[in-house]
Amino acid sequence: MAQVIIDNISNSLGSFLEGKYYSKIVVLVDEHTKKFCYPIVKSNLPNHKLITIKSGEHNKTIATCQSIWEQMTNFELDRHSLLINLGGGVIGDMGGFCAATYKRGIDFIQIPTTLLSQVDASVGGKLGIDFLGFKNHIGVFSLPNAVLIDAFFLQTLPKNELRSGFAEIIKHCLIRDKNKWNEIKVKDLINQDLADLIKHSVEIKKAVVAEDPTEKGLRKILNFGHTLGHAIETFYLDKGKKRLLHGEAIAAGMIMESYLAFEKKMIDEKTFLDIEEFLFTVYGRVEIDQIDFENILALTQQDKKNKGKIVRAAIIDGIGSCQYDVSLSKKEMLRALQYYKGI
Amino acid sequence: MAQVIIDNISNSLGSFLEGKYYSKIVVLVDEHTKKFCYPIVKSNLPNHKLITIKSGEHNKTIATCQSIWEQMTNFELDRHSLLINLGGGVIGDMGGFCAATYKRGIDFIQIPTTLLSQVDASVGGKLGIDFLGFKNHIGVFSLPNAVLIDAFFLQTLPKNELRSGFAEIIKHCLIRDKNKWNEIKVKDLINQDLADLIKHSVEIKKAVVAEDPTEKGLRKILNFGHTLGHAIETFYLDKGKKRLLHGEAIAAGMIMESYLAFEKKMIDEKTFLDIEEFLFTVYGRVEIDQIDFENILALTQQDKKNKGKIVRAAIIDGIGSCQYDVSLSKKEMLRALQYYKGI
Repeated sequence: MAQVIIDNISNSLGSFLEGKYYSKIVVLVDEHTKKFCYPIVKSNLPNHKLITIKSGEHNKTIATCQSIWEQMTNFELDRHSLLINLGGGVIGDMGGFCAATYKRGIDFIQIPTTLLSQVDASVGGKLGIDFLGFKNHIGVFSLPNAVLIDAFFLQTLPKNELRSGFAEIIKHCLIRDKNKWNEIKVKDLINQDLADLIKHSVEIKKAVVAEDPTEKGLRKILNFGHTLGHAIETFYLDKGKKRLLHGEAIAAGMIMESYLAFEKKMIDEKTFLDIEEFLFTVYGRVEIDQIDFENILALTQQDKKNKGKIVRAAIIDGIGSCQYDVSLSKKEMLRALQYYKGI
Repeated sequence: MAQVIIDNISNSLGSFLEGKYYSKIVVLVDEHTKKFCYPIVKSNLPNHKLITIKSGEHNKTIATCQSIWEQMTNFELDRHSLLINLGGGVIGDMGGFCAATYKRGIDFIQIPTTLLSQVDASVGGKLGIDFLGFKNHIGVFSLPNAVLIDAFFLQTLPKNELRSGFAEIIKHCLIRDKNKWNEIKVKDLINQDLADLIKHSVEIKKAVVAEDPTEKGLRKILNFGHTLGHAIETFYLDKGKKRLLHGEAIAAGMIMESYLAFEKKMIDEKTFLDIEEFLFTVYGRVEIDQIDFENILALTQQDKKNKGKIVRAAIIDGIGSCQYDVSLSKKEMLRALQYYKGI
């Protein structure tokens, strides 16, 4: 398991680099993290180079990888070099993939700067890019040499980005920790103790991933809300204003998949309504047109957890408990979409 | 270590597939293996799909990967699918890379059909593609689920391809087995017992890779002849008629690097002349223009074994024994090129 250090970045970066001799260091940023986060990191680094890419999920492509690999080559990085990924999930996933494949793998560390990447993407070694519109379709499992988390970076985030990351925190409570769920469900986002929740989420994710690094079994529970959530996120990716942040889509997915848990008698009605109420309060109801249902359902077919044509999802069977490899029929998923839409 | 089965393909493929339940099977071929090798494999496979790519090192690119990934996606391969790479090093390296990165990794097996890939590329889990003209610049280490070797496929090979593969066999003897070297050096290629030599080479390579799978130390000895050999191969890659097969370039590289071993007093003169004579007899002298020396030396800078600006090579210090991380100066390499050229 990669070392995860939650501390201010001067401390954690300093202690990571102590006693290490990298022949070259490169920092990967986008235009936002270059402006808001890089100045802090820069002052804690020896001589290094900078690669800047354009922000946004739609740039998480093989074309951007080619540009990153090309710059790494031009900087003459050898196998004893270090890539520092400074940014959200896109930077971490894609920068990690580029490092893991450059000369068959060089060292890299993740410095996640969004709440979402701090509590989710930075832990667990899933790296990759989108391809043909499918999320994380091409990638590898490869652990970073360290993950350095500093809640200070969250000050630079817009509110909707914070809210997006909060969805993964809620998910971690729902699948693994009833007590924490009872704590958070009575407070609005603004009143949550984020520093504590980041630590809590990282611990849950680390424990799950340690047991099953390559998602053969248990790790699949981290996909609760993601079967329908990912499909919705993917569908609206190129729909301009209707585009959703990851957590917004996952929140909708968690409502739908909790509804199916209720329908399958895996949770009782009171539990379901509790979840639904909290998620609607924080996220509202995402607008999904009925005419798009068919295409959204088609996208669930490409989910990496499936076996053959059967969609297999992670579904909670109580607060703090989750089953994986639960088969979902197209009809069930359609009912979940209809329920969510209020039809 | 991946299972390596040396047997006829009906036996090995049958026993590999026994008791396995793949949701889909795809075979990757080029126009040559489609014609000469696929018919034999086809009759030993259940229902499957075929992906055909154009042969040749110059097609071992990210663009070809994109086409392979796209077809894998169109065939709706899930994570429980199998990719069978039927061909030489290009098919094995690139198909393996595509399998190892598709949905973060699906099962794949290598069926090497050239002597070179049977004794070298198929064993050891090095996967990848060329990038910006640099060989295997982008890739991963990932072991196939099995390597199935059938010497029958060699009957379909032109003589120069056989000779190219033979260079890696010679290399394995020079770095690890003096007795075998003494056996082969007195026979012409046509009189060698290839079936025996394939087994011998695979055993040496397996033993070395098992000790050091990701090339942190010992595995580097497999690069004997490759520091200058790779540079020459790369330089002539886009030079039309002057293009060299891998083994032709490595044979030249082995002469040059043995010369440096002699210069550094790591081997005596008689040993060096022995090696030189045998390699010149089998491969002749590759034509390298003096005007290209500078560019060839520049290419050695991008070798993955280097640290910083220092070129580090594997150099024999006796027949059957090899050191790694031997620093080579530009002047030394220039002298080796000049010696080879007969200047």
